[in-house]
Amino acid sequence: MEGKRVYYFGNHEAEGDGAQKELLGGKGANLAEMDRIGIPVPPGFTITTACCIDYLAEPTIPAALRAEADAAIARIEKVMGKKYADPSDPLLFSCRSGAKVSMPGMMDTVLNIGLNDETVRGLIARSGNERFAYDSYRRLLQMYGDVVMGVDGELFEHAIDALKAKRGVKLDTELGVADLQALIAEFKAIVRKSAGRDFPSDPREQLWGSVEAVFRSWNTPRAVSYRNLNRLPHDMGTAVNVQTMVFGNMGANSATGVAFTRDPSNGENFFYGEFLVDAQGEDVVAGTRTPQALNLQGRDRLPQGNPVRDLPTLEEVMPAAYGTLCGIREKLEHHYRNMQDIEFTIQDGKLWMLQTRNGKRTGRAAVRIAAEMQTEGLMTPDQALLAVEPGHLDQLLHDQIDPAARVEVLGKGLPASPGAAQGEIVFSAEDAVAAVKAGRKVVLVRRETSPEDIEGMNSAQGILTARGGMTSHAAVVARGMGKPCVAGCGDLAVDYPSGSMTIGGKTFKAGDLLTIDGTTGQVIGGLVPLVAPSLDDPHLNRIMAWADERRTLGVRTNADTPHDARQARTFGAAGIGLCRTEHMFFGEDRIKKMREMILADSEAGRRKALVKILPLQQADFEGIFTAMDGYPVTVRLLDPPLHEFLPTADQQAEIAELAGELGSSVAAVKHRIESLHEMNPMLGHRGCRLGLTYPEIYEVQVEAIIRAALAVKARGVDVKPEIMIPLVGTVRELKDMREMSVAIADRVMKELGAKVDYLVGTMIEIPRAALLADKIALHADFFSFGTNDLTQMTFGYSRDDAGVFLPDYVRMGVLPSDPFQQLDQEGVGQLVAMAVERGRSSGRHLHLGICGEHGGDPSSVDFCHRVGLDYVSCSPFRVPIARLAAAHAAIRNG
Amino acid sequence: MEGKRVYYFGNHEAEGDGAQKELLGGKGANLAEMDRIGIPVPPGFTITTACCIDYLAEPTIPAALRAEADAAIARIEKVMGKKYADPSDPLLFSCRSGAKVSMPGMMDTVLNIGLNDETVRGLIARSGNERFAYDSYRRLLQMYGDVVMGVDGELFEHAIDALKAKRGVKLDTELGVADLQALIAEFKAIVRKSAGRDFPSDPREQLWGSVEAVFRSWNTPRAVSYRNLNRLPHDMGTAVNVQTMVFGNMGANSATGVAFTRDPSNGENFFYGEFLVDAQGEDVVAGTRTPQALNLQGRDRLPQGNPVRDLPTLEEVMPAAYGTLCGIREKLEHHYRNMQDIEFTIQDGKLWMLQTRNGKRTGRAAVRIAAEMQTEGLMTPDQALLAVEPGHLDQLLHDQIDPAARVEVLGKGLPASPGAAQGEIVFSAEDAVAAVKAGRKVVLVRRETSPEDIEGMNSAQGILTARGGMTSHAAVVARGMGKPCVAGCGDLAVDYPSGSMTIGGKTFKAGDLLTIDGTTGQVIGGLVPLVAPSLDDPHLNRIMAWADERRTLGVRTNADTPHDARQARTFGAAGIGLCRTEHMFFGEDRIKKMREMILADSEAGRRKALVKILPLQQADFEGIFTAMDGYPVTVRLLDPPLHEFLPTADQQAEIAELAGELGSSVAAVKHRIESLHEMNPMLGHRGCRLGLTYPEIYEVQVEAIIRAALAVKARGVDVKPEIMIPLVGTVRELKDMREMSVAIADRVMKELGAKVDYLVGTMIEIPRAALLADKIALHADFFSFGTNDLTQMTFGYSRDDAGVFLPDYVRMGVLPSDPFQQLDQEGVGQLVAMAVERGRSSGRHLHLGICGEHGGDPSSVDFCHRVGLDYVSCSPFRVPIARLAAAHAAIRNG
Repeated sequence: MEGKRVYYFGNHEAEGDGAQKELLGGKGANLAEMDRIGIPVPPGFTITTACCIDYLAEPTIPAALRAEADAAIARIEKVMGKKYADPSDPLLFSCRSGAKVSMPGMMDTVLNIGLNDETVRGLIARSGNERFAYDSYRRLLQMYGDVVMGVDGELFEHAIDALKAKRGVKLDTELGVADLQALIAEFKAIVRKSAGRDFPSDPREQLWGSVEAVFRSWNTPRAVSYRNLNRLPHDMGTAVNVQTMVFGNMGANSATGVAFTRDPSNGENFFYGEFLVDAQGEDVVAGTRTPQALNLQGRDRLPQGNPVRDLPTLEEVMPAAYGTLCGIREKLEHHYRNMQDIEFTIQDGKLWMLQTRNGKRTGRAAVRIAAEMQTEGLMTPDQALLAVEPGHLDQLLHDQIDPAARVEVLGKGLPASPGAAQGEIVFSAEDAVAAVKAGRKVVLVRRETSPEDIEGMNSAQGILTARGGMTSHAAVVARGMGKPCVAGCGDLAVDYPSGSMTIGGKTFKAGDLLTIDGTTGQVIGGLVPLVAPSLDDPHLNRIMAWADERRTLGVRTNADTPHDARQARTFGAAGIGLCRTEHMFFGEDRIKKMREMILADSEAGRRKALVKILPLQQADFEGIFTAMDGYPVTVRLLDPPLHEFLPTADQQAEIAELAGELGSSVAAVKHRIESLHEMNPMLGHRGCRLGLTYPEIYEVQVEAIIRAALAVKARGVDVKPEIMIPLVGTVRELKDMREMSVAIADRVMKELGAKVDYLVGTMIEIPRAALLADKIALHADFFSFGTNDLTQMTFGYSRDDAGVFLPDYVRMGVLPSDPFQQLDQEGVGQLVAMAVERGRSSGRHLHLGICGEHGGDPSSVDFCHRVGLDYVSCSPFRVPIARLAAAHAAIRNG
Repeated sequence: MEGKRVYYFGNHEAEGDGAQKELLGGKGANLAEMDRIGIPVPPGFTITTACCIDYLAEPTIPAALRAEADAAIARIEKVMGKKYADPSDPLLFSCRSGAKVSMPGMMDTVLNIGLNDETVRGLIARSGNERFAYDSYRRLLQMYGDVVMGVDGELFEHAIDALKAKRGVKLDTELGVADLQALIAEFKAIVRKSAGRDFPSDPREQLWGSVEAVFRSWNTPRAVSYRNLNRLPHDMGTAVNVQTMVFGNMGANSATGVAFTRDPSNGENFFYGEFLVDAQGEDVVAGTRTPQALNLQGRDRLPQGNPVRDLPTLEEVMPAAYGTLCGIREKLEHHYRNMQDIEFTIQDGKLWMLQTRNGKRTGRAAVRIAAEMQTEGLMTPDQALLAVEPGHLDQLLHDQIDPAARVEVLGKGLPASPGAAQGEIVFSAEDAVAAVKAGRKVVLVRRETSPEDIEGMNSAQGILTARGGMTSHAAVVARGMGKPCVAGCGDLAVDYPSGSMTIGGKTFKAGDLLTIDGTTGQVIGGLVPLVAPSLDDPHLNRIMAWADERRTLGVRTNADTPHDARQARTFGAAGIGLCRTEHMFFGEDRIKKMREMILADSEAGRRKALVKILPLQQADFEGIFTAMDGYPVTVRLLDPPLHEFLPTADQQAEIAELAGELGSSVAAVKHRIESLHEMNPMLGHRGCRLGLTYPEIYEVQVEAIIRAALAVKARGVDVKPEIMIPLVGTVRELKDMREMSVAIADRVMKELGAKVDYLVGTMIEIPRAALLADKIALHADFFSFGTNDLTQMTFGYSRDDAGVFLPDYVRMGVLPSDPFQQLDQEGVGQLVAMAVERGRSSGRHLHLGICGEHGGDPSSVDFCHRVGLDYVSCSPFRVPIARLAAAHAAIRNG
């Protein structure tokens, strides 16, 4: 390799900087950056990722690297005023990994490097703390043996446990100096026996052994699978940070702590943190000691009765160090222009910063921090927008499980629709409706849901299913309703006949209490405290106003009812991109007429039944048009296959009832159900295929749309109906359906003596339609990309069935993500881009939008922006997210 | 319009010629051509298709057209030596349609134009036959009234029937002169009453009325739907042929006949035809009189006892005219270089030719004619190849229903696999096997078939299904077996419980006799005489030798057994393009092991079962490799979802048996069956998705392939195995499966200390694979286009379900043809072309082939040639057809 191998930092003379994450890793770059801007960090050096890549190709440490490291060590020794592993006053090192992208806990660390039988005495002498020194040595033996020499870590733990048992103590801290000395001897023996060689007392050998181990840890199985899981490249390599050890556990004038520059839970601009005196970093998080509040402001915010209220704060016990820390807080926020998550150690009164990084925060905090930092001049509006992630908004829109609550997770499914829900378990849609009428709250648990369950789903607080993926019926409908849903929970077994379910080894009966978390996919027994959402937030309003100003993509909603339409408007939807008409056929008053239509054996019979449906559907459209006054409403004509509206073949009672109602025979009804059965309904007789073969169905729907539009227009509503033909795969399908629509509209308008503008367009959801988009566009006013079906057909994945292999595929890295959640830009995206280009090449002015589930997914929204769509459409509860994602896309793509 | 409107012909001075079919229509161009080459045709003129197009846009006859027609009439009058509608010796005209492409019977004709109360007397005077003249007049009134004046034709028929009843006679010919005169008066009254005006006696008005009617008949509903059905454009228009009437019914010195220049049933080079003395053309085909043999040669070929053997031939009764006809036969064959189908009329001893066109012929005749015409110097080998259509070969490969047999067609399904079959009806695969073991022949009748029916299908003479399309399971498997199959017969209702079926209003029980014709889709009650096929034909051998020389596309076969492989070799297959391994799991000895594998609940359990399958599958491969010695064999790893190998949930007895065999519980087996159930199995957990999630399955298959290859290689077989990974949609799928294959092969070869060359490639059958072909190609030695699945996914059509709308789509012209039969070049073809281009752009040398059903379809083979594939692969019985089609493609595309 060429170039510099080692980057020194310390004494504000860092050779690297925060921009060099690729070469120095995130940790190394940030240490250098802090050092450069005058923040005290323990001196050290970073070995570049390039060295790691070289090492992995040929596992030797080149002389040039040793030489550069030696030079850096000399600088450190000069700054610290002591020598590495000097027996009288030893300088010790830590050795940590640090890749470009954080991979927490995935790679190895060795601490206290430089200790041996001699130097440990120097440490005792300087620290005056024998137990501390031997414990540090013991830890080095343990970590080095495990990480560098490949000794099974369990062996060390067993030795400690055995010693504690012998001594009759429970905590490591109860072991005395003599115990630790014995343990050190035993650890050495374990290493010798297990590794076949001695623990190296040579400090140089320790150092390079540790560096090599960190290099190697890039390719441990857990690191590889972590990268697969998080879709990270395998060729980045890790940097290695060798840094002076500082100790917060050297007495009453030492301490260690973690802090956030603002409150990460609500975003309030106050310095939030915890610390412990005479402790190591791991003690703060381990829970063996109770960390104290950083300052009085923080302590005062604790609830009455919290024992920490009785403990002193850093502000009080080490006012000088606290003052320095406050200055650093200020400096970091101004430098990074974001809320920081920091780690610090105070050794003998001297403050050292060990880490800074952008802090994780709740949705509410993210919004407040962004808005306030803009006010404070720390962020531009664009930066403030980028500081709020779409996932943050998602939290704001739904109930959340109280982060403070202790919960017992029984199992996990797919986080299909966000938010937490709880109530009594019911196993059928009917039970859900009945229970809710009786004033109870329920969670509907099903193997899977079907369109017949809609009312029950609507009644329930949330939905839990054993089968199906992120775009299964339950998931799609729940998201549309904004209702929490955990789908495809493989741990769950539902037994309808006995009215019970089993999960996590526990069995629940109907009526038992359950909580589900659709944000995480968790299923929890009983009730747990929830935190309610609130959208009425001035900070949020400012962020969203900037987003709307910044974005060029329109945002519509997928809504089938006036209620959903109104709700989506409050979330900022400017129109309906997908109004599914099939849900209109499932109401109590309609399903029978629909079945009568399906079971009719002639066109005349079907028309007779359809005429009864017409006024009902017209009324539906009037409601939706009125709710969307001033905005376009894209109505998709009937899409699902007809058998979805009939009982299934084994529902004997329903069939008998249906036959009775229609004056037909059970055999005839059964025969019709059988004749409509399909092997692959997804690829069957549905969408415009029904429209062409049973023209009367679409004719009635178009008539209802036009009549409704004229009716509401007469009442002063600014109505903009768009008729959308689904499942078009050939030019003639759209041409014929367009001609039919125009003919019906002309007739109705002539009859009523009034006019209304409308568009006729198509879904692009079949690969062939994308391929023929130039010809199809000649008959279209708009294209709406139905990326759910387009994904199904382009991949050959049934979204109902892919749940058995898609999770494996994502886990194995065969796919970067579930293509039903994130649009597959590499494959499906090619078809979308092709259809956009070919469609526009037709010379027609086409409106282009997307109405698949991807319309609410941020990375997919970014794609839609880049590919030149006019709008995205998503379920009401995703509308704010889509608005923000669209703004992000506009900012990121210039 | 510009240019000439009217083209005169007659007296060998025709203005047009045979190449002008677009302008003059097929009939007009051929009449002009015959006239030019010295063949006597009644003089006339053709009004161009351009005039028709103009007329349809603006329905008036321009003065220029009248003037040109008048000039042509004057030339006719001069040649014929009489005047149009001259009362003393009238020249009469026929007026016939004639489009570029023949649309037999779809448009209108008017004969005897020019007759009226005056001219009929001139016709009587010149013909000396009063009855003939009045009958001709009566016919004009009837045709003109119907065609030109829009009178319901039934009215005339009722009048004739009433008169016959009154006279007490049965035949029209029994009506006398007085009767005909009365009828003429009545017909005139009918016209007047029905059309509101008189039949025009003015001959010019008659002529132009007829011309306009023919123009208009281009757009009659039946003509429009004929064009839709035959995918003909609607903007061609028809030419109009006005031609001198000649009469074969003017006495004993007149005659009319039809003939083929060679025997159309076997191709023998002799002049085959029929004629009648004193008759009109329609009498020859109407069956009211028995036509006589044209010559002695033809009469001698009639079977003993045929009454025609007692009738004189034209050769005997009109030797001069016959001699002229023989000369014309010679001239036409030399001119058209093809066997001709001709019509002639002898009026008063003078021979006139009315029509010539290439004659329809049987497959056997086509082959013999082409081969012999090449020998005779009439055709080049290329022309001979083009003179044999792929459909002709199809006939040669299968039993056919004797064309002479009278059959009662009960219903019609899809012609799914060609050939005729007959036997006793059975309703289950088991019954088929049992009956055949007992020495009986059966037709297997099912609602639809599934992989479990394979043995029964193999035992049966043929298969009839009520459901499914051209690529349903029954159709695909039957074609693979070369077994006749009628699929998706909507007229058929099968009732398993009662063991009966109903079709065409008749009910059949198991054991009743049935005949099916997979070439036409006909279902026929009882047994009818069949004609056996023969491939041992020197003419065919010559044609196929030319084809193999000419074609550049390789032809392989889809075969799963050594038997099929050997059969395909005899048909000329040079390798196997698709060896499906799933059929290897359905044998009695394997299915149980396969089920044991599927029901195992761990990888170890699956491996244990798979180890038992390995030697069986290896033996299968050894057989196939040996049968294909010297040629490549592409083995597709397991493709269908696992549930296809298990009993279905309602097969209680089978489940119980299976549970018993495996020492498992019924509940556990049921649970596994349920857990494997898929909503859309076509888009489910199958192909390489199984390979990745249950790696042990593919590992065992690859091991079996490599072991088999090494074993047969050791026995001297030249083996060329190609491992094909199905259903690849992502790069990683192929990459992983290739690495796995190479690892297994390396291991086995090392273990056995021997080597064998093999390829690893993939099906391109998922749209996404075509889109990513450049990246996928990096891991492939070959692509094989699986156009069945590619068509399913590109269109979003399930081939199992599309039967309910695809026939409608083809009928309505939404699709030009069933895309499962003819590759959709416009849509699916784009993906194929894209994958070819992108795949080759990867820089790898890729072998490219197609193994979908389209590999045996001529138009698809042509596409494969143009797009640059290396080979096509099809079922054994399509191999000769593919070879011929490939030669056609090479000739047509230069």
